[in-house]
Amino acid sequence: MPVYNAPLRDIRFVLHELIGMERFANLPGFKDASADVVDAILEEAGKFVGEVLQPLNQVGDREGCKFAAGEVATPTGFRQAYQTYCQGGWGGLAADPEHGGQGLPHLIGFALSELMSGANMAFAMYPGLSHGAYAAIERHGTPGQKASYLPKLASGEWTGTMNLTEPHCGTDLGLMRSRAEPQADGSYRITGTKIFISAGEHDLADNIVHLVLAKIPGGPEGVRGISLFIAPKFLPGADGSPGKRNTLACGSIEHKMGIHGNSTCVMNYDGAVGYLLGGAHRGLQAMFTMMNAARLGVGIQGLAQAEAAYQNAAIYARERRQGRSVAGAKDADAPADAIVVHPDVRRMLMTARAFTEGARALGLWTGLRIDLAHVHPDERTRRDAEDFVALLTPVIKGYFTDMGFEVANLAMQCYGGHGYIAEHGMEQFVRDARIAQIYEGANGVQALDLVGRKLPQNMGRLLRQFFHPLDVFLQAHAADAGLRELVGPLARAFGRLQQATAHIATAGLKDAEEAAAASSDYLRLFGLVALGWMWAEMAKVAQTKLKEGSAEPEFYRAKLATARFFMERMLPDTAALQAKATAGKRSLMELDAAVF
Amino acid sequence: MPVYNAPLRDIRFVLHELIGMERFANLPGFKDASADVVDAILEEAGKFVGEVLQPLNQVGDREGCKFAAGEVATPTGFRQAYQTYCQGGWGGLAADPEHGGQGLPHLIGFALSELMSGANMAFAMYPGLSHGAYAAIERHGTPGQKASYLPKLASGEWTGTMNLTEPHCGTDLGLMRSRAEPQADGSYRITGTKIFISAGEHDLADNIVHLVLAKIPGGPEGVRGISLFIAPKFLPGADGSPGKRNTLACGSIEHKMGIHGNSTCVMNYDGAVGYLLGGAHRGLQAMFTMMNAARLGVGIQGLAQAEAAYQNAAIYARERRQGRSVAGAKDADAPADAIVVHPDVRRMLMTARAFTEGARALGLWTGLRIDLAHVHPDERTRRDAEDFVALLTPVIKGYFTDMGFEVANLAMQCYGGHGYIAEHGMEQFVRDARIAQIYEGANGVQALDLVGRKLPQNMGRLLRQFFHPLDVFLQAHAADAGLRELVGPLARAFGRLQQATAHIATAGLKDAEEAAAASSDYLRLFGLVALGWMWAEMAKVAQTKLKEGSAEPEFYRAKLATARFFMERMLPDTAALQAKATAGKRSLMELDAAVF
Repeated sequence: MPVYNAPLRDIRFVLHELIGMERFANLPGFKDASADVVDAILEEAGKFVGEVLQPLNQVGDREGCKFAAGEVATPTGFRQAYQTYCQGGWGGLAADPEHGGQGLPHLIGFALSELMSGANMAFAMYPGLSHGAYAAIERHGTPGQKASYLPKLASGEWTGTMNLTEPHCGTDLGLMRSRAEPQADGSYRITGTKIFISAGEHDLADNIVHLVLAKIPGGPEGVRGISLFIAPKFLPGADGSPGKRNTLACGSIEHKMGIHGNSTCVMNYDGAVGYLLGGAHRGLQAMFTMMNAARLGVGIQGLAQAEAAYQNAAIYARERRQGRSVAGAKDADAPADAIVVHPDVRRMLMTARAFTEGARALGLWTGLRIDLAHVHPDERTRRDAEDFVALLTPVIKGYFTDMGFEVANLAMQCYGGHGYIAEHGMEQFVRDARIAQIYEGANGVQALDLVGRKLPQNMGRLLRQFFHPLDVFLQAHAADAGLRELVGPLARAFGRLQQATAHIATAGLKDAEEAAAASSDYLRLFGLVALGWMWAEMAKVAQTKLKEGSAEPEFYRAKLATARFFMERMLPDTAALQAKATAGKRSLMELDAAVF
Repeated sequence: MPVYNAPLRDIRFVLHELIGMERFANLPGFKDASADVVDAILEEAGKFVGEVLQPLNQVGDREGCKFAAGEVATPTGFRQAYQTYCQGGWGGLAADPEHGGQGLPHLIGFALSELMSGANMAFAMYPGLSHGAYAAIERHGTPGQKASYLPKLASGEWTGTMNLTEPHCGTDLGLMRSRAEPQADGSYRITGTKIFISAGEHDLADNIVHLVLAKIPGGPEGVRGISLFIAPKFLPGADGSPGKRNTLACGSIEHKMGIHGNSTCVMNYDGAVGYLLGGAHRGLQAMFTMMNAARLGVGIQGLAQAEAAYQNAAIYARERRQGRSVAGAKDADAPADAIVVHPDVRRMLMTARAFTEGARALGLWTGLRIDLAHVHPDERTRRDAEDFVALLTPVIKGYFTDMGFEVANLAMQCYGGHGYIAEHGMEQFVRDARIAQIYEGANGVQALDLVGRKLPQNMGRLLRQFFHPLDVFLQAHAADAGLRELVGPLARAFGRLQQATAHIATAGLKDAEEAAAASSDYLRLFGLVALGWMWAEMAKVAQTKLKEGSAEPEFYRAKLATARFFMERMLPDTAALQAKATAGKRSLMELDAAVF
């Protein structure tokens, strides 16, 4: 049976020692989030996910969801666990107190979402989708819509979904066929088929609030004619409780590679009642409110699966005895040494640590900026924070999920043949992690978003929120004897990123295919430099703590060793990525399509 | 439903145009293998795997094997398909005519094994393991053993297995507990439990010939005390047909990530009759005869899964319409362009092509040398060929299977969300391909074999079989105007391999952990340079054909374009790999084991 221990010490390191969230105690939400309070909440969250969610992770994978006559039964234990989740108030942690939430920073919600996904990704997706629906209604809803839906979503009594995809219409939403006919009472009647709707139907909550994209007849062609609707499974009655059943239903659920515990539904809308959310034909903007939050959430899923898989690989590597250290027996009295003595096993474990700890830092670093963008009194600070988040969103979604899958595979590899056997749970991490590279925009789409939208946006303004502070950091520490061995490689990698950026800016301006041809390698290059920055920042904190005579020297020394590993063993990929990102489109595009 | 089309044109290109197998017509086996005969055989093989094996690939995955009361039922259709396989004489293609085989070169067996695995990997493993058993008995068996077992294995009437692993004993065979007690009649009684025994029990054949490693009491400690035994499921009777049931049985089968159609068995030996194969305590040498063949076979599985996955991704990319080319609509009359217009989809497809075609060339290039090592009259030529095969075996096993998994994932990614759904079959390629990185020695073990055994062997003699001809090729074509754009990057990559080799030789000599710390990155660097060499050789052939006015200019132009892609987009990784392979062990090893 795999284990999961909430990585609380490392989260505390990032929140308090690296980003110092206490500095923002004057901001709404933060003033109630003292270090003691945050630590106590996360401690409780760690217990909840460890005791309630994690034991159901393999159960969910083995049983999967069951579909019959339009209804979905979730795996054994999921209902009870969801009730515990609601009773604990976990759904409303970062929600507005006006709607029954606790009003804590989104940053804390970010940390919680790592723990939930790490313990049980398939389960965590049910409430995870509610957060996106909450955000969209909070931002675009009428006062009446807010009053009807937000408290129910915050409490978890109802859950939410996102309905975008149709069989012929995935990335290209312009191809959408679902129609919404306006009614005399101001509502709409929605007709169409949506697929791949996570948590589209289940038995966990009293109602499901579907946010559905559809076209109002007579509107503009393509994506400019898309509107967003609220189509609840049960229409709220006069007292706010679920009333009449809406004419929408789950037609079937998919058999898929992983996340078996989460229902992936075909949803049929048959003249279903829907309420316009935001303006007519402005559905895409409203949907992006959900999508951007969801993309960051998916990035965190990548981190979470990597962490969970790593923890088990580390235990196995310390316990499994096989062979001898090539440097001579380390444990001569035992029949063999633990496999953690082997450099190549170390390579896999260190890669996992360097990614997960670096990604946690970057994820929370970004999470803080989501809060700043929401609540900071200074407009310029809000805009800067928003720019940073917009820039990093595709990087976090793409790089974290690619690495989440890679690390899950490395962790499985540490188990040898035992990793391939279902009972050890390692191959489930791999299968579950795989979806994160695909949904909420496949990673190739993230890369296009980065080079095609985020780089040129406002004349490159977004990029300055990353390049400028990194440049300041590198210059400030170039001569720092303690950090030099880290800052040197990082500065070289940053130089490569700058050169690749210049290539995309110039070649891409003349020919958009040149930018697209560079996009995936560029995104990964960006992710590596971003994690390198975090590692240098973390190393700086660790050195200070060690100088101050910390009572936990092992923790900080491990940070320094892992930072060195990152610079020596992961950052060199930036050289190859720069070469690929600047190689030009010719060798990609010259073959005729028919040759494939 | 996924498709599989045997890549016969490309195999013919490699056999006849690249390696020119006709040059060896004076050698045993080759004289009956004219181009016409070989092409006709492979054409038939393509039909067989396409019509008989491939339609069972998803069936096998969905149904899996069923275990009850010591017996294993294979999935629907497998029995009939296996009979067709035997009737076609496919099992004895490269077997000695003395034992009922057709005596064709192993090279052709290699090509056949790609087709079988590409169509249905789980099925192909049943007869695949028979080849290893055949090879071990042919090389180490007594005349009586050969007469009893080889014709039955060649015809496919009986199948074979390899029994190495025990619950506590995987890579480290020195920990083995299975015992073999000598009997008065010269036979042994074997007692112990073996796990992960592929095809250990099934309903396809009349008998199963288990080759079992066990220790004879009183022998040397550790791996030097291991012997190999033939322990058939049914002891051959006086007339050679299966007689008395041996006291060995399948205890259960594993539930695993993939290859569901192949039974992975726990085998219990309860005083089972076994016959010593090769000398007492010389089991490891005999086992390595099987293992080396098996490792190359596993490498071919990686290639095969990549090819099968690629073919489906290519079709999907040409047919799925979504979005528009960033360079402007390519198919303005349709609602959207096919996704093959997108540079990032091209990146995935081209990576798949560059790997599969390069790996096929290197695999058959190596397969030819297996034949030369067996049948060439000149001793030095035999030794050179054997050196080449020994050197490339870990590279082919490790690099091909890592890339097989990566390419299967890229192909799945081309499908977006549809790739994650079981019915399309793409995620099965990923799950099936994953085992190849693990079994027959996990890829980290292959890397150690390469740096710890193959590089230093006979004072670096093996390496010269690779470095010398590549050096000759590069020098001969350095000034070749047509090849310069390929030879330049390849020469730089080769330089990186040479420098990494020098680092391992010097640092590893002083400290074995330094060589181990470099091993996995070095193996991949080696694989990239080896494929680069093949691409340069293939480009040379293609240029000649185009100059000669070939009737298939598209085929050869695609070779040239793919060669350029490989050099521009895949070979740059060698820069990063050299940096990592020479970074030293410190950042891997400095953390205390307890910190993980």
